[in-house]
Amino acid sequence: MTSFNSYPALSARRIRGDNFQTRTIGVFALDTATTPFAVELLLSIEQTAQQAGWNVFILNLLSNPPTDQNVDLMLSHRPDGLIFSAMGLREVTIPQRLKSKPLVLANCVADDSSLVSYVPDDETGQYRALHHAFSQGYRRPLFINLPKKSLAWKIRQAGMQRACQAFGLATGELLQYDLSEHDAYGETAAILERHMIDGRPQFDILICGNDRIAFCAYQLLLGRGLKIPGDVAVLGYDNMIGISELFIPALTTVQLPYYEIGRNAARYLIDGLEVSGAQPVDCPLVVRESL
Amino acid sequence: MTSFNSYPALSARRIRGDNFQTRTIGVFALDTATTPFAVELLLSIEQTAQQAGWNVFILNLLSNPPTDQNVDLMLSHRPDGLIFSAMGLREVTIPQRLKSKPLVLANCVADDSSLVSYVPDDETGQYRALHHAFSQGYRRPLFINLPKKSLAWKIRQAGMQRACQAFGLATGELLQYDLSEHDAYGETAAILERHMIDGRPQFDILICGNDRIAFCAYQLLLGRGLKIPGDVAVLGYDNMIGISELFIPALTTVQLPYYEIGRNAARYLIDGLEVSGAQPVDCPLVVRESL
Repeated sequence: MTSFNSYPALSARRIRGDNFQTRTIGVFALDTATTPFAVELLLSIEQTAQQAGWNVFILNLLSNPPTDQNVDLMLSHRPDGLIFSAMGLREVTIPQRLKSKPLVLANCVADDSSLVSYVPDDETGQYRALHHAFSQGYRRPLFINLPKKSLAWKIRQAGMQRACQAFGLATGELLQYDLSEHDAYGETAAILERHMIDGRPQFDILICGNDRIAFCAYQLLLGRGLKIPGDVAVLGYDNMIGISELFIPALTTVQLPYYEIGRNAARYLIDGLEVSGAQPVDCPLVVRESL
Repeated sequence: MTSFNSYPALSARRIRGDNFQTRTIGVFALDTATTPFAVELLLSIEQTAQQAGWNVFILNLLSNPPTDQNVDLMLSHRPDGLIFSAMGLREVTIPQRLKSKPLVLANCVADDSSLVSYVPDDETGQYRALHHAFSQGYRRPLFINLPKKSLAWKIRQAGMQRACQAFGLATGELLQYDLSEHDAYGETAAILERHMIDGRPQFDILICGNDRIAFCAYQLLLGRGLKIPGDVAVLGYDNMIGISELFIPALTTVQLPYYEIGRNAARYLIDGLEVSGAQPVDCPLVVRESL
């Protein structure tokens, strides 16, 4: 026996049938360690829950799917609802015994497409950013995309194609490269090099799959004496917390709506919303100084 | 009543007196949202616990000290031990009723100095990095430090003074600036400007209080046509996850030992170590290409 009897256990309160108990959201958090920049998702879950008088506890996952031990631990704490969150957009496997509870996915999609899931609207995000760039007059884009295997790749391609059609750009002739892996930022240098002649870029705007690619590009372009955006413009993606404010000049980028995704997921559980399937969440364009 | 009776509740298992139960560490996590780069601390707590067959659950804190509700929620889950962690080194207030449990602090210090606390050894970290720089022949450093009110400021000054004494540099004549606030990276430009004449830096090495200052400096120096380290060297601090790999050329920096701090804190609880007070954890120098 332990000595915590002076503190009410949630389960003990439930056994008493106390209706005034605080309700609790249990959050599975996947990839937190490798994608620290999405912590706003967890923050907004907590703030939304707090405002509604609910509690939150978080169980980090070191692997997907969660182990039996992960599921046991989560369920032993008897949450009133579950959020399964991933810090980087991805497909996840939801163990069957979690599906009997109020459950919502945040920044991930499940193999079971009936589950409610809040995900970034990357199609509109990419479309809106490119529409803005083409409206500024840029016509010779060079793309350094996320790896082709990433979930966002295909979705953003659709947005890109829609923006190109709006401005009469032939998508077949675009200069497009995909990183081989998510952390292969070093490939940026070789791609830029291939499209420079006598130190001058043969593109007028660099479209980056994320802000980290943009950061590598900034140093490479500035190091060649080029001005951003005077000589070449740069467009990012993510509006990555802790990084986006470091660009000189400030980076125009698309915001991944981690905060909104977390809030929507929490509200789905708290308010008992009746929706099903994937719910796209708007990705705003953050206009700064790089184009 | 809820319908989770098919899953064993931790408290129910305790009431049965089951000795084979998995033990659990409850983690308070402060500042996770604003300092996402320290998530390695949580990761290592989880991995260390997992290897020992312990569970972990995390309660993010939106304020310090934790609210009564935070403490109630944590204790209601009946953890076998507690870790109070902060993502940015700081002083925290530990509520009295947490002190009756096995408790350890990670990357923070308490008003109660008898509590066990694992913190970065910033004195040795700064000393070692500057000793390395001076050994390379650099003699005209410009410092852009963390804000003076930060806990690390005074500790690093001690390391700096020790390194200067070893090489006969008069500390009173050093070019030193402190950022006014933690996120005042924009001040970097004006400080550099003040020590450039005709586009040439009047310092041979820039010593940065963190990698973000270094990142701003890279763009400003490269944008002026200066080579790193050929024209001016740059030394960082933090080895910030997700940022440190983006520097071109790669940044020489001091590593904040988040992973080691988390591991030590978890092992303190799991192994029942007998230590007291602040335990400094080594901050290795990561030598790359910027000096």
